[in-house]
Amino acid sequence: MQLITARYVATQPDRDPDVLAENIAREQSLELTRNLISETIAERFLGRVLDVTRLDQKRWQLDIGYPMELASQQIGQLLQLVYGNVSFYPRIRLVRLTLPGPLLERLPGPIGGLGRIRSIIEVPGRALLMTVLKPRGSPVDTLAALALEFARGGGDIVKDDQNLVDADPADFALRVTACARAIEQAAQETGRRCLYLPHVAGSGDHLQRQLDIVAGLGLSGVVLCPWVMGLESAAGAARARGLMWLAHPAMAGTFTEPSDHGIATPVLLGTLVRLAGADISIFPGPGGRIQTGHGDEVAATCQALTDSTTPLRPTLPCFGGGKTLEQASAAADRYGSDCAVLVGGDLIARGPGIRRDVAAAIARIDSACA
Amino acid sequence: MQLITARYVATQPDRDPDVLAENIAREQSLELTRNLISETIAERFLGRVLDVTRLDQKRWQLDIGYPMELASQQIGQLLQLVYGNVSFYPRIRLVRLTLPGPLLERLPGPIGGLGRIRSIIEVPGRALLMTVLKPRGSPVDTLAALALEFARGGGDIVKDDQNLVDADPADFALRVTACARAIEQAAQETGRRCLYLPHVAGSGDHLQRQLDIVAGLGLSGVVLCPWVMGLESAAGAARARGLMWLAHPAMAGTFTEPSDHGIATPVLLGTLVRLAGADISIFPGPGGRIQTGHGDEVAATCQALTDSTTPLRPTLPCFGGGKTLEQASAAADRYGSDCAVLVGGDLIARGPGIRRDVAAAIARIDSACA
Repeated sequence: MQLITARYVATQPDRDPDVLAENIAREQSLELTRNLISETIAERFLGRVLDVTRLDQKRWQLDIGYPMELASQQIGQLLQLVYGNVSFYPRIRLVRLTLPGPLLERLPGPIGGLGRIRSIIEVPGRALLMTVLKPRGSPVDTLAALALEFARGGGDIVKDDQNLVDADPADFALRVTACARAIEQAAQETGRRCLYLPHVAGSGDHLQRQLDIVAGLGLSGVVLCPWVMGLESAAGAARARGLMWLAHPAMAGTFTEPSDHGIATPVLLGTLVRLAGADISIFPGPGGRIQTGHGDEVAATCQALTDSTTPLRPTLPCFGGGKTLEQASAAADRYGSDCAVLVGGDLIARGPGIRRDVAAAIARIDSACA
Repeated sequence: MQLITARYVATQPDRDPDVLAENIAREQSLELTRNLISETIAERFLGRVLDVTRLDQKRWQLDIGYPMELASQQIGQLLQLVYGNVSFYPRIRLVRLTLPGPLLERLPGPIGGLGRIRSIIEVPGRALLMTVLKPRGSPVDTLAALALEFARGGGDIVKDDQNLVDADPADFALRVTACARAIEQAAQETGRRCLYLPHVAGSGDHLQRQLDIVAGLGLSGVVLCPWVMGLESAAGAARARGLMWLAHPAMAGTFTEPSDHGIATPVLLGTLVRLAGADISIFPGPGGRIQTGHGDEVAATCQALTDSTTPLRPTLPCFGGGKTLEQASAAADRYGSDCAVLVGGDLIARGPGIRRDVAAAIARIDSACA
């Protein structure tokens, strides 16, 4: 039996930890009292308790195995399987998730990932610098000028802010076309291409019209908010167009912020986002206005996104949430070259100095990664 | 200026409450330091602090107003606007959400809701009894027989378990067709139609094939998991087919369970789900294996789903999570006739007595609502 294994930490469990583990295994798989489950069905579909270990005075670690078939080869169903109903139990946090090989092979994973990003921007071996176009309400020319100066300075990736959302696709087309042209202009000047990722939101026809526009401009990828749109919905929308996608973490703090509930950052914004096929995953990371809060989850998240023990392509880890240009090289120094740092406000504040300061920051990152 | 107003409760705030309120207003609207926001943009797009009130020793209530335009007339963007980035702030809970009239008129709301459900099942004025087809792995005949006996007993609504998910749409078609036929057979015998809602999951073509099958069978609605699929993605998929939908709360406990973080049940599974157009919203409610945990949120959630002060059709509130047949009439007694109670395991356990026990439960509910 191929099992998906999930590790939960139960803090001050509301019942005997062994009973709780059995309850979770059953709740998440068949959601029925044990005596109503036939042996045939139990053997094939019932979750099973693998281990219960006391961690300290208050916390127990519960390892549960779920038959692989329960995920139905769908990333949404996988999410539901490991945390759907148990999200209503008090103080249960999912902290580790391991998938069997045959399931890993059937889930999408990134279509491009870190390797393709490096190839597009022609940066083989250092940490990357990303910026964000904002604020909403800015004239299109202002946003395009920001993209242009960042790319001229040698910046690697420009993304739209997740607040850039248009009720009318015509406004989206105008804005994205102007920014794409700015990036193209810089590429002609510098001989190197910056990667531009517009933010696409909404659903149905509205979503598809925006993706049409992005594909029509020949862009390589988009920004999506999987914890708003749905992880599988986001992944499917990008994949259907052959677009790479950056997973923005909006709403994800709901899962990661409470220390005794939800899903730990390395699982949510590492393992699950990579399984779903995000090519870039933004998470708070070290320093700045918003930081990854619990222990040293930064390294664990980078590891989950990039480790080579799975058949999936690596996803580029990106630290976001109010980072400064100075923090970019520090992050590279600490976490190595396979990461990106998103600098927004600190860059915009530099006004006419953007180009120069980006070039200097890239040089510092180069040194840090040398 | 038309404002969306959001009320947050900050528990043991990590900075001065007035500063925190200003930070949230800015984070959620323009996400930029104040000095980099022009007056023109601020006037049109910047969130504003409406009120800061101390509730007790540990808690402050922060009322923030967001310009209506920021929601871009999209339910996903509304969600992002009121909790996207602030989800990463410690101990901030969204407890109330009020929309201005012009935005309410542009959001979908239920296409059928409580009124259409009552009309289909011909039950004008009592609480409703719902059951669930499970467990996964059961032969199709077993599930169809359960649906048949429930409908013969006079049960009102049958839904698929959210764990019933097929990797192959052909399996979905076989199962759903058999259950739909069972309901039809019961309707011919009893002269009254039970409402059957199959669970539809996944994304892209796979999702569309299942919706094709449901529409082809002439069924009225489906079960969707909006906190897995994405709230707007789920709503859009159902609306595009003219199908009603039941919002299953899988994963929603991530938001509702921590008492000092996330989004309160009346907002998440009440206001937001109704705005998105769910015709039925399941939430834990009173009693059973899983209960609504914080204060008396049950009445507030029912109120958010059904109050007539908005132009939206009312959504049917449904209490789920291990309720018993006995609890069904008790709930009707306490919360009135505009609710449903979902009874799963307790019904399945009755085996050959299902039909009789359903009829008796309906009679008790009838009395409770008389």
